[in-house]
Amino acid sequence: MKAGLKGKDLGKAIPKELPECMGAVASAVYLLILIAFIPFVFYKDIVAATSGGGNRDVVLTVTQIETGRFLQRFPHSKLGSYQSVLNTLQATTILGLADDILDLRWRHKFFIPAIACIPLLIVYYVDFGVTSVVVPNFLVPYMPNGARLIHLGPLYYAFMAAISIFAPNSINILAGINGLEVGQSLVIAGLLVLNSSLYLVPFPGNPILNNGYATRPHPATESHLMTLYLLLPFMGVSTALYIHNRYPARVFVGDTYCYVAGMTFACVAIMAHFSKTLLLLFIPQIFNFVYSVPQLFKIIPCPRHRLPRFNARTGLREPSVTKWEDRPPSKTLTAAFFLLERMRLIQLTIDPATNRISETSNLTLINLWLVWRGPLREDRLNNELLVLQIACGILGLFIRHTMAVLIFSMDNRGKYGERFPV
Amino acid sequence: MKAGLKGKDLGKAIPKELPECMGAVASAVYLLILIAFIPFVFYKDIVAATSGGGNRDVVLTVTQIETGRFLQRFPHSKLGSYQSVLNTLQATTILGLADDILDLRWRHKFFIPAIACIPLLIVYYVDFGVTSVVVPNFLVPYMPNGARLIHLGPLYYAFMAAISIFAPNSINILAGINGLEVGQSLVIAGLLVLNSSLYLVPFPGNPILNNGYATRPHPATESHLMTLYLLLPFMGVSTALYIHNRYPARVFVGDTYCYVAGMTFACVAIMAHFSKTLLLLFIPQIFNFVYSVPQLFKIIPCPRHRLPRFNARTGLREPSVTKWEDRPPSKTLTAAFFLLERMRLIQLTIDPATNRISETSNLTLINLWLVWRGPLREDRLNNELLVLQIACGILGLFIRHTMAVLIFSMDNRGKYGERFPV
Repeated sequence: MKAGLKGKDLGKAIPKELPECMGAVASAVYLLILIAFIPFVFYKDIVAATSGGGNRDVVLTVTQIETGRFLQRFPHSKLGSYQSVLNTLQATTILGLADDILDLRWRHKFFIPAIACIPLLIVYYVDFGVTSVVVPNFLVPYMPNGARLIHLGPLYYAFMAAISIFAPNSINILAGINGLEVGQSLVIAGLLVLNSSLYLVPFPGNPILNNGYATRPHPATESHLMTLYLLLPFMGVSTALYIHNRYPARVFVGDTYCYVAGMTFACVAIMAHFSKTLLLLFIPQIFNFVYSVPQLFKIIPCPRHRLPRFNARTGLREPSVTKWEDRPPSKTLTAAFFLLERMRLIQLTIDPATNRISETSNLTLINLWLVWRGPLREDRLNNELLVLQIACGILGLFIRHTMAVLIFSMDNRGKYGERFPV
Repeated sequence: MKAGLKGKDLGKAIPKELPECMGAVASAVYLLILIAFIPFVFYKDIVAATSGGGNRDVVLTVTQIETGRFLQRFPHSKLGSYQSVLNTLQATTILGLADDILDLRWRHKFFIPAIACIPLLIVYYVDFGVTSVVVPNFLVPYMPNGARLIHLGPLYYAFMAAISIFAPNSINILAGINGLEVGQSLVIAGLLVLNSSLYLVPFPGNPILNNGYATRPHPATESHLMTLYLLLPFMGVSTALYIHNRYPARVFVGDTYCYVAGMTFACVAIMAHFSKTLLLLFIPQIFNFVYSVPQLFKIIPCPRHRLPRFNARTGLREPSVTKWEDRPPSKTLTAAFFLLERMRLIQLTIDPATNRISETSNLTLINLWLVWRGPLREDRLNNELLVLQIACGILGLFIRHTMAVLIFSMDNRGKYGERFPV
């Protein structure tokens, strides 16, 4: 707070000044944990690759020792993956800090993750380079020669870059009430951990997950283990942050945390090849983004803050609105608004004097939830949105693991299944 | 400046408020350049390792493509080195930003580089793992069995960690006048570039550098090329920063830049195995540190700022002093001060009334230079100190390349010479 990083909590009867950017501290702690964890991730490999480590069968000649080249068996590509994730997250943190401190413009902020994800994509390129996607069964008849794979080439990199731009920004715009940024990140991380754990436990009698064998470990174990290495410490720092950020908030998280959280998810999804699964866990964020598009791209006016309005009399949150009094909406817009209202996707106020639309609720998932559920206290609102996130995520995972077999011809293909982004 | 990152320039007649931490911007630009440069460093390798890249002689089987494992020949350890340098520099930047914004305590700041250098040391461990140093000739007779190498083991890692702690902090404490932090970094970078270029040009007729052959490229070419990749962009951003930071300064650099600069030098020295050469380029910094020790460790009082005093009447800088009026120095200290004065290493003021020491000049190289050369204008002082830095550095390089043959039994030993930190 001494450094001027503070903000007013607009959702309280008596707005208090709270320290801002505390998510930057959480992110820094997270990065330090990841750095300090490197030796542990590779402990087994270091022991196997160095002479001192118990594998007495490896005889080292003097030349090998002198050239220092006796560590060939060390899994450099695994270390490379870990390092590239760390590089990407650190770049994200630096750019997020710049944003938090200097208050960048929206159009500059948007591309922050695009720059930060370069180290990740490069290592993906040299390590895997797989840019083909599996064609869904129902489309196979329409493919030339009945091909089951499409090679996307550079398009696939554009897809991955898009994911790393989308994930951080979508978390950043689904925000505005105490605890929601951190809460949703915790839910997504928890579901990803659940998803990755499915690959670690050798499910007896589940031939889909175990390639026909009852107890064989899944071939993608390594990459899902890496996911856990990255997500478990993330959940740790997020829980600590959530305790301070939940209603009534004692700190604000700032943009840095949102970027780092989203980028962590993008990184693990790209590294462990489950970017489509990730999108299933982002259903509320995707909805919120699509729903926000008219305001984000200024098709209809967008106020500086769209967070729900605090009603000082009831102490509850109500949908915030865009006012149309000075400049009524065009005919097309009016028709669209009435259609949306009929679908219960917006709240309209009609001025009885002119019979024109005077107010529309702002297009965010938080406001829409208030339109549906009525005024709610901030903590209740947050909890309900988190339950929605959990429900959507579990549904998503359920779809992914049961329906994939129907849509594609296989779920996780034996030896090299997970290399394809199913 | 809007974000509160500003400071007063104490060395001017009318102290103006200047933006602080502009070095953080330079560091961020430097990191972005390094990130964007990754594809170019490895372009040749990517072309050689991927199927699309012109090496038609590599026949790829379907299995190889499906498992995505056909990129085995890519130099992962080279990418690993580059990535670990990038990780270390990014961690340094993040911790430096934390310091600039939150004003950490000195005892916490000191260990910032120690944490940041972990990624570097780990990759050193798995990639090279060479922890032996060459024994100087004159010591060989005293070694057991006349050994020419000592295996330092963990001690060598402590040595590298010490270098990464020392380099950033020593640049940070040799500061206080416009342009000096950036200027000395530019000089050191320039000399390192010169040193590395020596290995790239095949000197005709220089059998020491070319292993007896007149035009064969040096075996350490690759690692010195890496040094240039890292140092040339660093010199670019530093030059830009110097233009704004030189007398009269329009911006301050902040701690982030000093840390990143020092860490860049430590990284290249560790990666390209010339840490002892680096120390030869740090002679003024080492002198300044040793000279400062009594004040840094509070053996004698240390004021908050030790930068030279501005004399408003003459417009020149004079040595700043520690006052002893309230508490005169002990007998031992007095004797030490008189000895130092006789060696012209300190300036004393003696109170004629009590015949006791009333003032001693602060123990920094900048003050000492003013003791020797008399009051100087700030830009003149800066330029003279930079000339000193250049002179010491060139002398150091000269010693390193001519005397090494005398002290050790070889300079750069043929095939694996550079693997040993000569």
